[in-house]
Amino acid sequence: MELMEAIRGRRSIRKYRKDMPSDEAISYVLEAAKLAPSWANTQCWEFILVKDESIRLKLSKTLPETNPARGAVEQAPIVIVGCAKKGTSGFFKGKPVTEKGDWMLFDIALALQNLTLAAYEKGMGSVHTGFFDSLKAGEILNVPSDVAVIELLPIGYPEKEARVTPRKKVEDFVFYDSYGIKKG
Amino acid sequence: MELMEAIRGRRSIRKYRKDMPSDEAISYVLEAAKLAPSWANTQCWEFILVKDESIRLKLSKTLPETNPARGAVEQAPIVIVGCAKKGTSGFFKGKPVTEKGDWMLFDIALALQNLTLAAYEKGMGSVHTGFFDSLKAGEILNVPSDVAVIELLPIGYPEKEARVTPRKKVEDFVFYDSYGIKKG
Repeated sequence: MELMEAIRGRRSIRKYRKDMPSDEAISYVLEAAKLAPSWANTQCWEFILVKDESIRLKLSKTLPETNPARGAVEQAPIVIVGCAKKGTSGFFKGKPVTEKGDWMLFDIALALQNLTLAAYEKGMGSVHTGFFDSLKAGEILNVPSDVAVIELLPIGYPEKEARVTPRKKVEDFVFYDSYGIKKG
Repeated sequence: MELMEAIRGRRSIRKYRKDMPSDEAISYVLEAAKLAPSWANTQCWEFILVKDESIRLKLSKTLPETNPARGAVEQAPIVIVGCAKKGTSGFFKGKPVTEKGDWMLFDIALALQNLTLAAYEKGMGSVHTGFFDSLKAGEILNVPSDVAVIELLPIGYPEKEARVTPRKKVEDFVFYDSYGIKKG
């Protein structure tokens, strides 16, 4: 698939068919994630692939009832749990080198963008889910304290086509040479 | 270009030719960034495109002398300064809803991964630069206090092919159903 077709076509999917993606399809999306760049090539990301239905059900309860992705975590054949080793991205000799502290959110997002684009190429949908109790999810999955649970990413074949969400225009978020300056 | 060719071929580029990419090429990469998903579709990212040589020179001095990307900021025809509105991504009614606080690093990285892949398709290189004095850069670019300067992304045509950096194997960062569990 053409790169821009994937970028343009990817949607956030919250309803899934029951059929399990093949091992080849899952390997493909993990390979895409693997190839992402990261802070000093630290590659802080770690993924837990949850297929077990009882664990997915437990994880879904870490989302607030108002989160529309709650059903997706319960229902999708796989939930990829995005984790990251704390204190590596953005760090040098054990200390953060910028005022932003840990850059793990940045690096794992680079990898997950690759992953979700590759999933779309293979006919699969996904949805980034950041609004959940990550500490509770970490307990369910036995995640050690030096690793952060960042997001839950349900993945599988979409039950139906998803709607297009609108975007700002490019000219609404781009400036030239200084903040607030529109091209003259 | 095929999606996986872009994911596989993209490199971090630190030496650039002097020629300026066309307006069409720049529009293309900004369009790719625009299409990224974000927390509740908040689209917190803002970009400042710096072509002015004297400003690029000032920005390059916000990098430590040890950062190999310092020359790239000075030399690339364009530096895209990735900024983000604080307090939107990961927030609800003005309050952060997760223990991670602001998700701006996550969302801007989704957009920037799209952008750098699209740049590669158009023959351009780029390099994520997070290790610099972002507060000083914000002063140079008149960035208001409610907006964070996240990264400097030099962009342009590579002077030469870049080396391949190694990656972990997929099995080194993927677990099944619980942290630490390798496929049986």
